[in-house]
Amino acid sequence: MQRIAIYPGSFDPITNGHLDIVFRASRLFDKTILAVAYHNEKDTLFNIQERVKLCKEATAMIDNVEVRQFKGLVVDFAKNVNSIVIVKGLRAVSDFEYELQLLLMNRKLYDEVETVFLTPRNCYLYLSSSIIKQVAKLGGDVSEYVPKSVKKALEEKYKNLDSDI
Amino acid sequence: MQRIAIYPGSFDPITNGHLDIVFRASRLFDKTILAVAYHNEKDTLFNIQERVKLCKEATAMIDNVEVRQFKGLVVDFAKNVNSIVIVKGLRAVSDFEYELQLLLMNRKLYDEVETVFLTPRNCYLYLSSSIIKQVAKLGGDVSEYVPKSVKKALEEKYKNLDSDI
Amino acid sequence: MQRIAIYPGSFDPITNGHLDIVFRASRLFDKTILAVAYHNEKDTLFNIQERVKLCKEATAMIDNVEVRQFKGLVVDFAKNVNSIVIVKGLRAVSDFEYELQLLLMNRKLYDEVETVFLTPRNCYLYLSSSIIKQVAKLGGDVSEYVPKSVKKALEEKYKNLDSDI
Amino acid sequence: MQRIAIYPGSFDPITNGHLDIVFRASRLFDKTILAVAYHNEKDTLFNIQERVKLCKEATAMIDNVEVRQFKGLVVDFAKNVNSIVIVKGLRAVSDFEYELQLLLMNRKLYDEVETVFLTPRNCYLYLSSSIIKQVAKLGGDVSEYVPKSVKKALEEKYKNLDSDI
Amino acid sequence: MQRIAIYPGSFDPITNGHLDIVFRASRLFDKTILAVAYHNEKDTLFNIQERVKLCKEATAMIDNVEVRQFKGLVVDFAKNVNSIVIVKGLRAVSDFEYELQLLLMNRKLYDEVETVFLTPRNCYLYLSSSIIKQVAKLGGDVSEYVPKSVKKALEEKYKNLDSDI
Amino acid sequence: MQRIAIYPGSFDPITNGHLDIVFRASRLFDKTILAVAYHNEKDTLFNIQERVKLCKEATAMIDNVEVRQFKGLVVDFAKNVNSIVIVKGLRAVSDFEYELQLLLMNRKLYDEVETVFLTPRNCYLYLSSSIIKQVAKLGGDVSEYVPKSVKKALEEKYKNLDSDI
Repeated sequence: MQRIAIYPGSFDPITNGHLDIVFRASRLFDKTILAVAYHNEKDTLFNIQERVKLCKEATAMIDNVEVRQFKGLVVDFAKNVNSIVIVKGLRAVSDFEYELQLLLMNRKLYDEVETVFLTPRNCYLYLSSSIIKQVAKLGGDVSEYVPKSVKKALEEKYKNLDSDI
Repeated sequence: MQRIAIYPGSFDPITNGHLDIVFRASRLFDKTILAVAYHNEKDTLFNIQERVKLCKEATAMIDNVEVRQFKGLVVDFAKNVNSIVIVKGLRAVSDFEYELQLLLMNRKLYDEVETVFLTPRNCYLYLSSSIIKQVAKLGGDVSEYVPKSVKKALEEKYKNLDSDI
Repeated sequence: MQRIAIYPGSFDPITNGHLDIVFRASRLFDKTILAVAYHNEKDTLFNIQERVKLCKEATAMIDNVEVRQFKGLVVDFAKNVNSIVIVKGLRAVSDFEYELQLLLMNRKLYDEVETVFLTPRNCYLYLSSSIIKQVAKLGGDVSEYVPKSVKKALEEKYKNLDSDI
Repeated sequence: MQRIAIYPGSFDPITNGHLDIVFRASRLFDKTILAVAYHNEKDTLFNIQERVKLCKEATAMIDNVEVRQFKGLVVDFAKNVNSIVIVKGLRAVSDFEYELQLLLMNRKLYDEVETVFLTPRNCYLYLSSSIIKQVAKLGGDVSEYVPKSVKKALEEKYKNLDSDI
Repeated sequence: MQRIAIYPGSFDPITNGHLDIVFRASRLFDKTILAVAYHNEKDTLFNIQERVKLCKEATAMIDNVEVRQFKGLVVDFAKNVNSIVIVKGLRAVSDFEYELQLLLMNRKLYDEVETVFLTPRNCYLYLSSSIIKQVAKLGGDVSEYVPKSVKKALEEKYKNLDSDI
Repeated sequence: MQRIAIYPGSFDPITNGHLDIVFRASRLFDKTILAVAYHNEKDTLFNIQERVKLCKEATAMIDNVEVRQFKGLVVDFAKNVNSIVIVKGLRAVSDFEYELQLLLMNRKLYDEVETVFLTPRNCYLYLSSSIIKQVAKLGGDVSEYVPKSVKKALEEKYKNLDSDI
């Protein structure tokens, strides 16, 4: 039996911290699906197409990783793709509590899928998409924390925002 | 002297976790007033009338519990109803810190009222109204976590939201 | 029906933080029993007789407070004295987790008793018997944090320790 | 060499907790610059001019403190004013994690500036601008937590909001 | 390639919380080795032979689980048995930090093994071997939290301790 | 006026994490005194002379750093050496709470000295002397986390322990 993991998130945008987790997951399971969650466009910086595209570019070199988008409950998506594992990256403490809340709810909704937490490298332990956006917006250099294509996409996005002002 | 407790919150909507706390409080104090806080309508899913109605239905069977709405400071409401106890349900860690902040401020504003923390059953320790709404919105089954009337109200609410799209 | 609370602990020795909690409990319940836990003598600075005596002196002026010692499970003691409430003082975060562990276990062992958490005054939020002992041992002045009799008892104790060296 | 510290924040509005930190910083470093961050007007209660003015009034009596506004990255501002220290007030746990996230990012962006955490007095440990605003909005008395000028400004602000309704 | 996980710990004694984790791991990996760590006899209630025996009895019915004892570094044991995964059960917050410390150290010592965190059922989230021992020692009923053989072993152990007194 | 900082601790033994903090402190203050706390010999792996010696060797190249030993209260030592700053390295969350407890007590005992928290590099955020000792004892390689002299001292120490068995 093939063991399929999903790694759900907003990936708005994908960071090196996410990639670190994807890579670790790809070694533990036969296939890992990076599952990009649909959101209302106004709630994310990048729309769903952009987020998926950036994820695909960033994971192109890992064989057993696939990028898909989904709408609705994570557990329903897991069921649809025959996944038995939800992978989550674990960072700070407050993070863990929220993740625990999700995990317990997901387990109640569908108990055939197991949530596993993986921990990124030291330097990504306190990284998040929001701090990346915050820094990029103010003109800071985020090249150590995101793939090149994401860096470029962030520059484009914030240039446009600027010209709006 | 009768000891009156108030249990303030948004209750947007009331969950089984809230009910667990109400029930525990009702055994410790002579009367418990479930105090539903007024908010701007756009900040809650259910308006104040709906929230009060759902709370009343859910607590109808507990003798010494009363449901009231209030506007303004919790301590002012406590003073008005001669309450000497504010009951809070305690869940996760981050929760506790925010509650501590409120408690210390409330104590400064009016030191005749004591805040006590009660802990719900295991299975409600990581429950919150927001995760309930999030799951219900995506079509998940929340019947283990809310009273029947709340489940129905959530379905109504999100059906209407859907037809808006 | 009279509502009896117990406030269990080592009280090695009792501090102003403990007294603050006792006082708050005494306003909420008809009677509060300060329950001093038996320990092996080598595990505490003061033996059980000394700890009980210091607690009695410190709470002498509060009418509805009683000091008792107990051995064995807290819930068994609660049952024996017809108590329906275990009072715990809540301080820092790590504290809360350990207390939660105890609470859930106690509830499983005997679910007729409810645990309530009370919060001491600001200045006692980060106080503990161990830091008091640590400071007193090194000759620091702890008079703002303990009753006079405790201060004297600590001085006696550490003077004797000194002469041992 | 003169050691210059900056103390960045929104100060929306400045509280006695902030002032406590400024005062402590002023004793440790030759000069402390209270650096008020620019934000979109709709994101703060007071606009940048108001926030700066309230900070200036509140710190007027401390010799080696200066109030400045800035836009963009904190580290760029630090560089511009030759500061080697970013001062942060530390309060609750969740606070610390977010601050750690900022610190590590700032260090990566510019490693010539060191972040130091100072702790305010007991009674300000759980204080924040948001709880002040929340209480003031509901008519509570915040005079123990903010300078007089801030109290007056809050009253003005919320009076106007009221008349809008 | 067969994926082998190790689940290291003291298991002094094994609890239902541990068993819950073992069972979850057994579904995710081809083989799971429950790895019982050697300790000085005086540091554990049960000696290494007893701990291993109790673990074997408790996991006898799960096909792809094996019990082994080890001495030395966890990562060295992982290397010896060709394991690519260290499984850890995650409970409360403070737990997580200590686990993070171990994880980062282990990764530095041997980066071919990945640590994954699994979460037990709700009712075991706040369970630990030490609270089990504490309760059993005082005569409390722990049968909901440990396998029958462990319950019996605890009774034996504490009966003997009693007769020593 | 010269600003003198003290950096108190057990340093049993000094790690690269400690050195990272010393170095940061040395840039912020005119002089930094690494203050090695006296303990009963049986409570530390290295005795006070050994700990001081290892600290001296490790900090020899930093000009404005001095190593001293002390007995008694940290604040008394601070007073004796005219220090106005106690430097503490900040790591994980639980750490912070204990440090807060010490800080508030120290401030009460002597309010002329300020405690500042500095944060070490990413890779030392979860490092502690105890995990170093634990790993070294089991034969793991700790050379990335301690100065060479400490590594050698640990090897000596644990070799002797071995031959005792």
